[in-house]
Amino acid sequence: MKIICSQSDLKNNLAFVSRAVPARPEPLVLGNILLVADETSQKITMTAFDGSLGIRASFQGEVVDGGTVALPAKLFNDIVSRLPEMEITLDCGDGREEDTNLVATLSAASSKLQINGMDGSEFPELPTVASDNVVELPINILLEGLKGCLFAASTELAKQVLTGVHLSSSQDASADDAFLEFAATDSHRLSVVRAFFNDSEVEEDTQSDIAENLTDLAVTIPARALRELEKMVSEGQSTFKMRYDNSQIVFEAGERVLNTLRLTGAYPPYERLIPATFSRQITCDRKRLISSLELVSVLAQKNNIVKFSLNSTDEELTLSVDTPDVGSAKQSLPAEITGEDIDIAFNIKYLMDGIKAISSAEIKMQLNEWNQPVIFTPLSGLQVTYLVMPVQIRN
Amino acid sequence: MKIICSQSDLKNNLAFVSRAVPARPEPLVLGNILLVADETSQKITMTAFDGSLGIRASFQGEVVDGGTVALPAKLFNDIVSRLPEMEITLDCGDGREEDTNLVATLSAASSKLQINGMDGSEFPELPTVASDNVVELPINILLEGLKGCLFAASTELAKQVLTGVHLSSSQDASADDAFLEFAATDSHRLSVVRAFFNDSEVEEDTQSDIAENLTDLAVTIPARALRELEKMVSEGQSTFKMRYDNSQIVFEAGERVLNTLRLTGAYPPYERLIPATFSRQITCDRKRLISSLELVSVLAQKNNIVKFSLNSTDEELTLSVDTPDVGSAKQSLPAEITGEDIDIAFNIKYLMDGIKAISSAEIKMQLNEWNQPVIFTPLSGLQVTYLVMPVQIRN
Repeated sequence: MKIICSQSDLKNNLAFVSRAVPARPEPLVLGNILLVADETSQKITMTAFDGSLGIRASFQGEVVDGGTVALPAKLFNDIVSRLPEMEITLDCGDGREEDTNLVATLSAASSKLQINGMDGSEFPELPTVASDNVVELPINILLEGLKGCLFAASTELAKQVLTGVHLSSSQDASADDAFLEFAATDSHRLSVVRAFFNDSEVEEDTQSDIAENLTDLAVTIPARALRELEKMVSEGQSTFKMRYDNSQIVFEAGERVLNTLRLTGAYPPYERLIPATFSRQITCDRKRLISSLELVSVLAQKNNIVKFSLNSTDEELTLSVDTPDVGSAKQSLPAEITGEDIDIAFNIKYLMDGIKAISSAEIKMQLNEWNQPVIFTPLSGLQVTYLVMPVQIRN
Repeated sequence: MKIICSQSDLKNNLAFVSRAVPARPEPLVLGNILLVADETSQKITMTAFDGSLGIRASFQGEVVDGGTVALPAKLFNDIVSRLPEMEITLDCGDGREEDTNLVATLSAASSKLQINGMDGSEFPELPTVASDNVVELPINILLEGLKGCLFAASTELAKQVLTGVHLSSSQDASADDAFLEFAATDSHRLSVVRAFFNDSEVEEDTQSDIAENLTDLAVTIPARALRELEKMVSEGQSTFKMRYDNSQIVFEAGERVLNTLRLTGAYPPYERLIPATFSRQITCDRKRLISSLELVSVLAQKNNIVKFSLNSTDEELTLSVDTPDVGSAKQSLPAEITGEDIDIAFNIKYLMDGIKAISSAEIKMQLNEWNQPVIFTPLSGLQVTYLVMPVQIRN
């Protein structure tokens, strides 16, 4: 195998696929990047795989001799990122001679580096999708949806289906207000985002085509894969293609491909958790609420609880925190309040995550009693519903 | 005690003194910042101390009631840095009522925070200097000197005097070419910097005054204290005052003071280590040498050794690294070479530290044999001599 390509193409694609390389590769060959050079198409393809997530990227280069080799990911990255921005030649025996290791030689100007590789055939094939379920998803809609809810997915592997984001489509909406719905919850809080197709960057005709194709969509995708998907945007692409069957999902954008296991098992019927009516409502400046929470959280120490006190007469929301033997904090901010005054307490971290994921200038908080779910929504922009359960106030 | 001051004054001075707060305070009171408010001078002074290093800073504020209190450093910092940029009132009982804790109340606009403090009298006094040895040191000279050698001091406490930088003055040089000499070594490498007074930013007359006062200077200062000293530069100050006796050193710049233990014991006679003559000399581009070392170091793995091969015929310096079972790297760069060709090897880290601390565009390397000390010097600018011992090449 012998290829000649630009340092920047090699570096960028390598950095992208390397995100799928596991920290503790098992089997060891997964600590490598698979490199395949195809003489006919003059294409170089790189693949990394951790057993569940696989990432693949291709780019054009000069393929003098086709072939395949697996190279240690970290070393390969470290070398390529330190080489000057110029043409790089990668040359590699075919490993046919016995008793010799497969050695890859990278050369550029006055540099020459050799690293021991492995036979490319030892690298496992990425799983394929057995059905021809293919949908197209506008990239900007997908990214917005993820931004608003990815953080709420559980990080505990034992929580299985909750470690993913549930993606579904509007069922009987007309093409005009068709949307994708994203939901994530770790059982303490829930974030639901509706991203409308007419906010997407694809053309109107294509929008309705896409929407029609999507009527039955309901898949749960691992959050880990979606975090990588956020970085996968390819130049000149406005949509991802998503192929899926009962066990695998494959995203494609241009020359970049991301494979992931699909999370199976029923996703909880989260719509039922969101109260239909509320007896109290508060509207306030979102950034001010964030900085107030940041200030009082300093005194929250371990229990991490903040109390919200509503004062409709003074149109004031007061946050307070009290940690015996350490100190206490109180911060008030102006707010429009309807409903009776009440004290209600939250875990600060859960509150912060959700309020930060909403991007409008003002935020609306709706609640019933101190022990019932509370929802936060933006006053404009992307339609996010963030639900948190309050906590009991110690007295 | 009651003071009113600006958030930024409080924040900046607090951040500065907090660098002396130990990670594991022993006794516990050292985890606090001592705050002293003086009604007469309307000055607020903050002090932190870790038992060996002490930092103190004062600033003007409105002192309504004088007094003193010790407040938990981390909490105090966290609060002040999150308060908005405006006037802050700090109010604190005098602790006279028994059975009550000393509580400090910080208030600003709609925020009110209370933290438990300790009686200021429990905070130890910073050590004082018993003699009237006082010298003045131009700040920019001191900073340049430190930049060129601080990194070479040992980080192993057991190496005692080597954990410091040795500061001495030119003995019999005329005022015109008077200098300060900075030396640091961890026994593997040595960096010596000569900083000349006529490069300083103080006026010429003052320069000679300062130089005359300095003729007998020879002190070893802990590197840890010097790292903080680098951050101590005060507005409108061009010199530090340094007071010292046999056990303590105190640096003063404007309203900022830094106290440190002095390292005792004879500093090794390092001048003798530097060879007087060399049989070989190489000059090359410094940045190119750094990037070449960075590239080949990727393949150096654990042993961390690079071989320099001199080729005077081709005017080329070749760096090479070889790690069995992993790979190898070779990188050549143009160099002016005098003397016979030779192979010589170094620890990459030691080499890098020194070459990075030198700031000229080109660097000169002088050596005799493969097992004798090598020195690196800049072709212009600050006078740095960096000495490293080569290592044996495995064959």
